[in-house]
Amino acid sequence: MTAIPDKQTNSTDFAVTALRDRIFRGAIAPGTRLLEVPLAKDLGISRTPLRQALLELEREGLVERKTTTGFVVRSLTFSDVCDAIDLRGLLEGAAARRAAERGVPDAMIAQMNETLNRIDTALTGAPGKFDLTGYADGNRDFHHLIVDAAQSRVLRDEIARAETLPFSSPSAFLLSQRDDLPFQRSLLTSQAQHRAVVDAITRREGARAENLMREHARIALTNLEYIMGLERSARQQVPGLALVVD
Amino acid sequence: MTAIPDKQTNSTDFAVTALRDRIFRGAIAPGTRLLEVPLAKDLGISRTPLRQALLELEREGLVERKTTTGFVVRSLTFSDVCDAIDLRGLLEGAAARRAAERGVPDAMIAQMNETLNRIDTALTGAPGKFDLTGYADGNRDFHHLIVDAAQSRVLRDEIARAETLPFSSPSAFLLSQRDDLPFQRSLLTSQAQHRAVVDAITRREGARAENLMREHARIALTNLEYIMGLERSARQQVPGLALVVD
Amino acid sequence: MTAIPDKQTNSTDFAVTALRDRIFRGAIAPGTRLLEVPLAKDLGISRTPLRQALLELEREGLVERKTTTGFVVRSLTFSDVCDAIDLRGLLEGAAARRAAERGVPDAMIAQMNETLNRIDTALTGAPGKFDLTGYADGNRDFHHLIVDAAQSRVLRDEIARAETLPFSSPSAFLLSQRDDLPFQRSLLTSQAQHRAVVDAITRREGARAENLMREHARIALTNLEYIMGLERSARQQVPGLALVVD
Amino acid sequence: MTAIPDKQTNSTDFAVTALRDRIFRGAIAPGTRLLEVPLAKDLGISRTPLRQALLELEREGLVERKTTTGFVVRSLTFSDVCDAIDLRGLLEGAAARRAAERGVPDAMIAQMNETLNRIDTALTGAPGKFDLTGYADGNRDFHHLIVDAAQSRVLRDEIARAETLPFSSPSAFLLSQRDDLPFQRSLLTSQAQHRAVVDAITRREGARAENLMREHARIALTNLEYIMGLERSARQQVPGLALVVD
Repeated sequence: MTAIPDKQTNSTDFAVTALRDRIFRGAIAPGTRLLEVPLAKDLGISRTPLRQALLELEREGLVERKTTTGFVVRSLTFSDVCDAIDLRGLLEGAAARRAAERGVPDAMIAQMNETLNRIDTALTGAPGKFDLTGYADGNRDFHHLIVDAAQSRVLRDEIARAETLPFSSPSAFLLSQRDDLPFQRSLLTSQAQHRAVVDAITRREGARAENLMREHARIALTNLEYIMGLERSARQQVPGLALVVD
Repeated sequence: MTAIPDKQTNSTDFAVTALRDRIFRGAIAPGTRLLEVPLAKDLGISRTPLRQALLELEREGLVERKTTTGFVVRSLTFSDVCDAIDLRGLLEGAAARRAAERGVPDAMIAQMNETLNRIDTALTGAPGKFDLTGYADGNRDFHHLIVDAAQSRVLRDEIARAETLPFSSPSAFLLSQRDDLPFQRSLLTSQAQHRAVVDAITRREGARAENLMREHARIALTNLEYIMGLERSARQQVPGLALVVD
Repeated sequence: MTAIPDKQTNSTDFAVTALRDRIFRGAIAPGTRLLEVPLAKDLGISRTPLRQALLELEREGLVERKTTTGFVVRSLTFSDVCDAIDLRGLLEGAAARRAAERGVPDAMIAQMNETLNRIDTALTGAPGKFDLTGYADGNRDFHHLIVDAAQSRVLRDEIARAETLPFSSPSAFLLSQRDDLPFQRSLLTSQAQHRAVVDAITRREGARAENLMREHARIALTNLEYIMGLERSARQQVPGLALVVD
Repeated sequence: MTAIPDKQTNSTDFAVTALRDRIFRGAIAPGTRLLEVPLAKDLGISRTPLRQALLELEREGLVERKTTTGFVVRSLTFSDVCDAIDLRGLLEGAAARRAAERGVPDAMIAQMNETLNRIDTALTGAPGKFDLTGYADGNRDFHHLIVDAAQSRVLRDEIARAETLPFSSPSAFLLSQRDDLPFQRSLLTSQAQHRAVVDAITRREGARAENLMREHARIALTNLEYIMGLERSARQQVPGLALVVD
């Protein structure tokens, strides 16, 4: 096979970004059948890069391939989203257990603690005055370090896949809730869990590390339940919520 | 998008089967770059169904897409295979826990017990005289019932995906070891674990159901270690082992 | 056997209280051999109630019977105390799992939630202004409710026994740290764990309930490590710390 | 306190053995009040060693002290016995997890494997021809090694206590079922669990070691359920079953 030429790659990337955006905004509704010919025309690209883009979105869980009708926009139930969050907890829990059981080099433990210190700095002061961007950065780094520490290509790939589902990423709700006080308080609980996970890995307590990481993922569930209880107008500002049908 | 015409679907299916077979037999070595033009010509099909086939094999974990060079045959280490088996145990364990926690209708419990009775029948007599096809059928049904009982679309999809990886299916080693006595004895242990899982689900003991199911998956690991210790000629008869590089 | 007459019971109770107090204050040092004759004389009671009292203190883990020399005051290492805290977490975790697995009547779930609401009230306002007596009351009731919900005489007895060891009770450090700010903040984490345990029991998620309860017990460990790092004079105010030898 | 003189110790030991035997045989029924004066006379000893003996039997869980009426023979329900078996699994599971997490010296791992090899030897040949005394010896040594490997005085004491309850010892049903074929087959499952526990400890997989050990204890539960289904005459030959009221 010859490598895909640059122009086609660019068209594919463009289509992925454009379609992901439309789906997240609800501009294309859940369940909509994606007709290839008009869609390619609409995006101003040819069918081959469009199909590549649809396959990428399928991998992200945003569209599904039906044998008879081609691709349709995925339609998620509330319970699908809960299950996807649980799945991430399951996989990250396995990564944390594995890291604890096999041991982690001192340098990586030091990196974990340094990351936790950065998060502490972001949470200085009273709830309401936290540095949320700093928190989100540290949080993302922490979750990556746990995956690195597991040293398993299989787990890394699965966790990467699980995070592409809407809402199941560790950062899913972070930036959509800037000004909410209960949410900001919940970051203190999250950070206490981060600390406990690193403590468990350092002591090589795998069962504890796994269970803490699972429980940690459930904070996203609490956030989701909170958001689902909001007014429709507020819910529309949460990216990807358009995929969830009642 | 118009539905894929039948002829193309048939060509795709043909290519998937042919390539999977070549890869499993080792006729195409791990790491080989799959050049699209000569490969399509060799299979006597056009490039569009070939690309569909490659995407399907990518989903099965047999080939990988590299951004610069296109598709290559996957090269698995022994430790990748171990991780894939652990992953299946993790996911099936979550399914069993969920079934236990949420409760399973009596009719489904009855189906589980009926399946276990069929496996018992297949294991009548002394090791060496077992009905291995009967065992494999019952075993496959048992694993499907656990997934059904979890009632989670997300878990079902993930388990289906995890099982496509070579060796990670619950039936992975069943038919390649017909005449081996220690292997036949290990089926008694497997069946004891099946019984304990159903007992735990019936009593709604989720932690126990999860842990039993995880441990159950590790029997595949023991079988794998056993096979890796065999002579090269014996190993070549195990489908998919060709993907594993030392 | 005739019932023990009241007078003797009173002498026994008196001796238990007096000796427990001396041991907790460090007035009788760890490892001290308790000579029956002078001790009975000192307490102004006869030897039979004294021996009953010593057997009671043995049951509480404060004295040990040596076959050759009679009773001696127990001498605990730091690691013994850690293990005793872990033991309580293990047993309370089993109680919470059991409650979740077997199900808890709605009326008892309501009692749990009412108790959690009382604790919330005690934690109104900023750390430093909490109602610690209210917290301690609610905390004690919460732990009792978890034990009740398990409906196991065996677990109830074991948990009661485990709590008599110094520092291993859920209330162990509550009243000795009134004015400490980090300690008061840790009560918010504890209460978040209480809420999560009741959520898990309500959803019949036994594995989760068990793991949360285990993690909850570890807060006592954190408190213990904190106290062991204090000045000797501050440590002397913590009841029972006199038993811990370096 | 002066050491207890030899004569009294001997009388105490004599009384413990005699009373334990009567209780296990059912010669003294569950719930019977033990009157001290006639009992001492009947055994031909004085009241002081008798009371020591009763305190020892209380510690073993065979008699209970009631505040108003003195000692009575304990009366266990079937569910108490199940809970006691679960308790042993919980504690031994914690010991195995701890050993795995903290690591075990190579020499002790070697001892474990040597013990497992001895058990394998006892299980040579077909079920029905096993060396049950050899199995019981190896089994006892294996359980002691797990406790040793945990290096926790607290866990050791708790496990020793938990094993004194009738039926909850790892050897509880071993010698009462010599000729029973299904029972002999269950020994193969037990030994597979022993092997898996040592494998988990060696790999430092604490969660797995804990869960295997818990499941291992449940074999006693299966045996108990089997025995409770036997004819009354067969049940009377099982020591301690007399304590269990329907």
